[in-house]
Amino acid sequence: MPDSAVHIDLPDWVAAMAPEGACFPDAEARMRLAIALADANVAHGGGPFGAAVFERTSGRLVASGVNRVLADGLSIAHAEVVALSVAQQRLGSFDLSWEADRDYELVTSAEPCVQCFGALFWAGLRGLVCGAHSADAQSAGFDEGPKPADWAELLQARGIAVTTDVLREEATAVLRAYVALGGIIYNPGQHHP
Amino acid sequence: MPDSAVHIDLPDWVAAMAPEGACFPDAEARMRLAIALADANVAHGGGPFGAAVFERTSGRLVASGVNRVLADGLSIAHAEVVALSVAQQRLGSFDLSWEADRDYELVTSAEPCVQCFGALFWAGLRGLVCGAHSADAQSAGFDEGPKPADWAELLQARGIAVTTDVLREEATAVLRAYVALGGIIYNPGQHHP
Repeated sequence: MPDSAVHIDLPDWVAAMAPEGACFPDAEARMRLAIALADANVAHGGGPFGAAVFERTSGRLVASGVNRVLADGLSIAHAEVVALSVAQQRLGSFDLSWEADRDYELVTSAEPCVQCFGALFWAGLRGLVCGAHSADAQSAGFDEGPKPADWAELLQARGIAVTTDVLREEATAVLRAYVALGGIIYNPGQHHP
Repeated sequence: MPDSAVHIDLPDWVAAMAPEGACFPDAEARMRLAIALADANVAHGGGPFGAAVFERTSGRLVASGVNRVLADGLSIAHAEVVALSVAQQRLGSFDLSWEADRDYELVTSAEPCVQCFGALFWAGLRGLVCGAHSADAQSAGFDEGPKPADWAELLQARGIAVTTDVLREEATAVLRAYVALGGIIYNPGQHHP
């Protein structure tokens, strides 16, 4: 087997800010971490999105993710995909529903775009908790793609409980700050003439 | 920076079968490679899907992908996501449309599921060429998820030309052979009691 064909890296500050195994008791505490990851990612030159996977009942942090599109040169590397992929490889299963007595949820600083929406169906997550709305991301210039209007219902129909509007204002403030700083909007075709 | 937080590996036989830089003149030749990758992946214990990214005009092979969900323990590691991610990291850009004079297309042995459909919007591809239909994958037991009925039109509206039905029978035969062999259908919740 050669070197990995694809790699997503997380800088050391992510683990320092979000220690694996730490407990976050409720949705707001978990969202505060996702927002702090988004905010710190901007400070380190990345996109304004953060996410994390938690064991739902205990609130134990399993994995964190930040947007790594620019840093790793990968369009899939949105914070949600990074967090759920780190969780799967850390736990050793492509299906986070494999333990009958343990459920996992993804907490994300902004509602998923069309790509992350699609990725949620196969991850085995039982919950999704969102901060900023897709409309907030769009207002900041991010393209959410043709995500169905009933995206939350489609996820819920597959056993993924969806909670929105958790610290929406705080989450949206990170998006606005990124734009105010002149941050790159990295949809295809938008970062070059 | 620690070891990669997420890694997708490609076995050596992929590079041997699909040498980077080789030229595949037309859609059928490119699809034959995607189908051969799918078929070989089954022989090596993986899922029955293959894909590759080509420079559209020259037919130069940039990157290959096979389904690595089981092998790498990652629900995102469908052949399409693997191929486009390998292409991006190999070419050094998250946006395959960054070169004004060069377009890239993804050739896949089966139409994309809801996840890969979503991932296509941000990759910078200019073309998608498909073999088996989503209905063929569904007949073989694979869940395609709630992909919109007008998925091809939605991609085309974003500048991604979609071609379907290229060697559909040959592509579907790989799916059927996988099922006949008792292959695992690896949607969440389906591989354990």
